[in-house]
Amino acid sequence: MTERELNLLLLSSSRVGGGGYLDSARQLIGNLFANCQRILFIPFAGVTISHADYAQRVRAGLPALAERIHLLNLDDDGPETLASCDGVMVGGGNTFALLDRLYRHALVRELRDAVNGGMSYVGWSAGSNIAGPTIRTTNDMPIIEPPSLAALNLVPFQLNPHYTSFVPANFHGETRRERLAEFMVANPDSRVLALPEGCGLRVRGTEVEVVGEFAALELAADGRDLELAVGQRFNLNG
Amino acid sequence: MTERELNLLLLSSSRVGGGGYLDSARQLIGNLFANCQRILFIPFAGVTISHADYAQRVRAGLPALAERIHLLNLDDDGPETLASCDGVMVGGGNTFALLDRLYRHALVRELRDAVNGGMSYVGWSAGSNIAGPTIRTTNDMPIIEPPSLAALNLVPFQLNPHYTSFVPANFHGETRRERLAEFMVANPDSRVLALPEGCGLRVRGTEVEVVGEFAALELAADGRDLELAVGQRFNLNG
Repeated sequence: MTERELNLLLLSSSRVGGGGYLDSARQLIGNLFANCQRILFIPFAGVTISHADYAQRVRAGLPALAERIHLLNLDDDGPETLASCDGVMVGGGNTFALLDRLYRHALVRELRDAVNGGMSYVGWSAGSNIAGPTIRTTNDMPIIEPPSLAALNLVPFQLNPHYTSFVPANFHGETRRERLAEFMVANPDSRVLALPEGCGLRVRGTEVEVVGEFAALELAADGRDLELAVGQRFNLNG
Repeated sequence: MTERELNLLLLSSSRVGGGGYLDSARQLIGNLFANCQRILFIPFAGVTISHADYAQRVRAGLPALAERIHLLNLDDDGPETLASCDGVMVGGGNTFALLDRLYRHALVRELRDAVNGGMSYVGWSAGSNIAGPTIRTTNDMPIIEPPSLAALNLVPFQLNPHYTSFVPANFHGETRRERLAEFMVANPDSRVLALPEGCGLRVRGTEVEVVGEFAALELAADGRDLELAVGQRFNLNG
């Protein structure tokens, strides 16, 4: 297999703590897209916000890039529009809706090929989730049933954005860690990286660097999760 | 369509507040199964607990029924085992694993027919979720991809167990209500009943009664959700 030219930024969330929209991601995103002329924004995860409003919010959050951001509409030809751009940004929302619409717009394979070929990719939340082999570690509600849960498979590990170890008092639903433990039992050959809000992964070729404010966690079947500190680098293939 | 002989108890959770396992459900379950000789326990939602341990936990939680509880094993013939019982109880865990295993054991249609024909049914958490038309309002992680998200369709509304309006401070993942709002936008013709822990629905024929300690909520697209108090009765078909 030839070396892929990955140039990715996978962020846990659009907001961190009390910060504003894309505040903590602005510089990272700006650096990644420095050489891009036309950046496709895919708003398909947005369900309760109009896609025009979503694009407006993103442009307001990224003023230096605003004029280069091109909104993908639901009635656009997906592959043709993608081919007119040299960068792509996939926002958060509902991961099932996002993946379903990507399949319906014939964009899953096209996106995978374009990004594997070097197109710069930024995702946050649902937009990061789909960068893994499947969306089986999403936190979202399966409000729509996509043709498959198989996703872009840009990175060989599953991602869990918005990771939190918080447990409300006297609440008996599963904790996030318990849900992911179930995933690991059902899928023992999968790797899982958990990204707390404020954490991201910067992928260049086969090198991954933890970026942002908080460490990532590589989850372990025996519960002894490995902390990956901000600034730490590791090979994409483990 | 002939009147169905539904006899259901759909509980949000196995535990409520600081209470023990099935404490708050014990009497309701005992009443429902009063005339049943052999109660099938389906443990398929359990992923991180062995099914034998799961059955043991349930028997310990329901001592008066313990001798009548028959565990369905993964290598049993599903329809044959179901046919040997006159009641069925489906425990919580991962809803995707549960539904996937029901499909693989050819139990989805068999269970639907048996329960529509009068077999007493108790479910909690995932076991309640599958009583609706689909599992698209589950809170669980899609760790396994079932052949379909279509479920038993015993009741004509979607259920959301473990419903909570809790929002951790400075957390930017969607709230439960936001997730369900997304569902309602994507599925505008569906009804959604949210069951907080400690709430259940008792269905007899076409009458539904809210049981337990806390009110249910019928969610509304405009956000003006309808509280259904404990003791309130309504027709299954709205």
